[in-house]
Amino acid sequence: MQEINPWGSEDVKDYDKIMKDFGISPFTPLVKKIRNPHYLMKRGIIFGHRDFERILEAIEKKKEFAMMTGLMPSGKFHLGHKLLADQIIYYQQELGAKIFLCVADIEAYNMRLDDLDKLKDIAINEYLINYIALGLKPKSCDFYFQSNRSIAYYKLADMVARKVTFNELKDIYGELSPGKIISVMTQAADILHPQLEEYGGSKPVVVPVGIDQDPHIRLTRDIAARFEKEFKFIPPSSTYHFFMHGIKGGKMSSSDPNSYIALTDTPEDIDRKVKNMLTGGKESVELQRKEGGDPDKCVVFEIYKFHLLKNEEDVKKLYNDCKTGKILCGECKARLKNMLKEFLEEHQKKREKAKDMVHKFVKE
Amino acid sequence: MQEINPWGSEDVKDYDKIMKDFGISPFTPLVKKIRNPHYLMKRGIIFGHRDFERILEAIEKKKEFAMMTGLMPSGKFHLGHKLLADQIIYYQQELGAKIFLCVADIEAYNMRLDDLDKLKDIAINEYLINYIALGLKPKSCDFYFQSNRSIAYYKLADMVARKVTFNELKDIYGELSPGKIISVMTQAADILHPQLEEYGGSKPVVVPVGIDQDPHIRLTRDIAARFEKEFKFIPPSSTYHFFMHGIKGGKMSSSDPNSYIALTDTPEDIDRKVKNMLTGGKESVELQRKEGGDPDKCVVFEIYKFHLLKNEEDVKKLYNDCKTGKILCGECKARLKNMLKEFLEEHQKKREKAKDMVHKFVKE
Repeated sequence: MQEINPWGSEDVKDYDKIMKDFGISPFTPLVKKIRNPHYLMKRGIIFGHRDFERILEAIEKKKEFAMMTGLMPSGKFHLGHKLLADQIIYYQQELGAKIFLCVADIEAYNMRLDDLDKLKDIAINEYLINYIALGLKPKSCDFYFQSNRSIAYYKLADMVARKVTFNELKDIYGELSPGKIISVMTQAADILHPQLEEYGGSKPVVVPVGIDQDPHIRLTRDIAARFEKEFKFIPPSSTYHFFMHGIKGGKMSSSDPNSYIALTDTPEDIDRKVKNMLTGGKESVELQRKEGGDPDKCVVFEIYKFHLLKNEEDVKKLYNDCKTGKILCGECKARLKNMLKEFLEEHQKKREKAKDMVHKFVKE
Repeated sequence: MQEINPWGSEDVKDYDKIMKDFGISPFTPLVKKIRNPHYLMKRGIIFGHRDFERILEAIEKKKEFAMMTGLMPSGKFHLGHKLLADQIIYYQQELGAKIFLCVADIEAYNMRLDDLDKLKDIAINEYLINYIALGLKPKSCDFYFQSNRSIAYYKLADMVARKVTFNELKDIYGELSPGKIISVMTQAADILHPQLEEYGGSKPVVVPVGIDQDPHIRLTRDIAARFEKEFKFIPPSSTYHFFMHGIKGGKMSSSDPNSYIALTDTPEDIDRKVKNMLTGGKESVELQRKEGGDPDKCVVFEIYKFHLLKNEEDVKKLYNDCKTGKILCGECKARLKNMLKEFLEEHQKKREKAKDMVHKFVKE
């Protein structure tokens, strides 16, 4: 059975095998049951789920449900983060979910990323401001810091410790440290606490994650069931999206600025980064005209598909034009540069305005 | 090096060796530096310390200091618990310390002792009421539950995880579980949080413990030093008292009702328990008249010395009368029964009155 390490940064290759091994269901059959599916769903970028039917049912019956997710305040906000931000905003504004948005500052602190004040600063000025600029609204959004939540939340985190054994954690996470154990307890509390009385009681909760976070999801679903005496927790649902690849392939990673497009990048950054971007092109123009390119291996195409093209037909057309050699990498990259610059110019204006909105999300 | 297991219930035999091995200083040389030492100090029942000089200095210079201790809400409140209660009250009323009194309900919950509501009930109706009846006052006493403290406290507990390694915990505590790790982090926060800004800032803090709790003390002192960037913690001081022995010898233990005198015991309980009590007597009256008894091995004498005789001369006289065969066990036990019954009758009346005081200690 393939191991998944939620603290690692390896590129995940064999998604199908992992889905089968760990019992993740394919998302595609559900798309048609959603009135207004997100393009990430239609394009199969959100490819898997656990118990998403429960969320569908809540939407259909107009019952309360929540979306819970977290952010690790490290480095710049980039297109990989936007992938999740787009989902948050979709859940809030299209599906009517209550949003619980957690700053994993205790986790970051325990990983020795920075001190707590610095982490708070990054969370607000890198992450929150970009969320707002992308369209997140304060209403029905509960943005919070792990280090500054509520008694009920901390109590729950401490109670989680009773529900897991050491060997169980070792089986799931491998090598453990006190900091990791605190992180695991805290993350379980993050996912489950929207169902505490203090936060409106039991309800379906969906957690959109990359597949590397599935160990947390599995464990938290088990823990939810073990609290039957203390709380009425519904096991959380989850969805799984593909990771974005880095500019030169591999995983897009906060720790390598040359691997990502940040939402604060300048036009010069874009020119340089798109120039270096891995494509599915052939060695020569002639060969590519004849045999076509490979959009499935192309980071340029991925950015179009994950972020820039809003219309399904446009995605298909670009895919086919590449496959058939109708469009070449130079032209495709030039268009990407323009679209990215246009998007970022607009976005960076919105970022400036977003600063006035921060106080509506962060009390104190 | 002898191991100490803070979760075990073994009777500790070789105090001298442990003190030497772990660097605990003898308390006796300090007694004369205290204006009004407690009889537990004068009689050597409080036998060891770490950095108590710091507390002496605070007393002398009339600077703020605190005493921190905890209770594990399990079973009946007995004479072993009274030993600590007497110290708490002495620190509060004779030495002017601020008292932090922690109910270790998260620790008890993680040891699967009971549910949190039940634990709260025991903490109040067994422990707090007895403290009040023994003389604890609400002023300058911060009585709190681990499960219901403050954001600053939980934040500190989570931050502790960054300051310790897994192997370090293993070396100190042996076999670990997630619940134990949460307990260790929480206990470190219990001892250190009186020095947070929210609780008045850095100050000397003394923690009176049995020697089985020294691993927590040592670890917490190390952790305090590792927070130099985040907080100004003064390493906590500690004192060590002897355990009370059980009625038939061994350790007095909450889990064995026949091992202790509870402060709610009836006169009939006292008759039965004192009758069964281990003494240092000889096989025959004749032999004891001739050779004397052994008060150092006698539980009856221990109760006189730890609890009932307020005057040093009386303790010495009883000790000598026993040693020289002047007093025999029957007479000594009869007197103990009377003194215990008298004390308990009085105490139980005070317990009734104490119920009206609970709300001054427990908010909500």
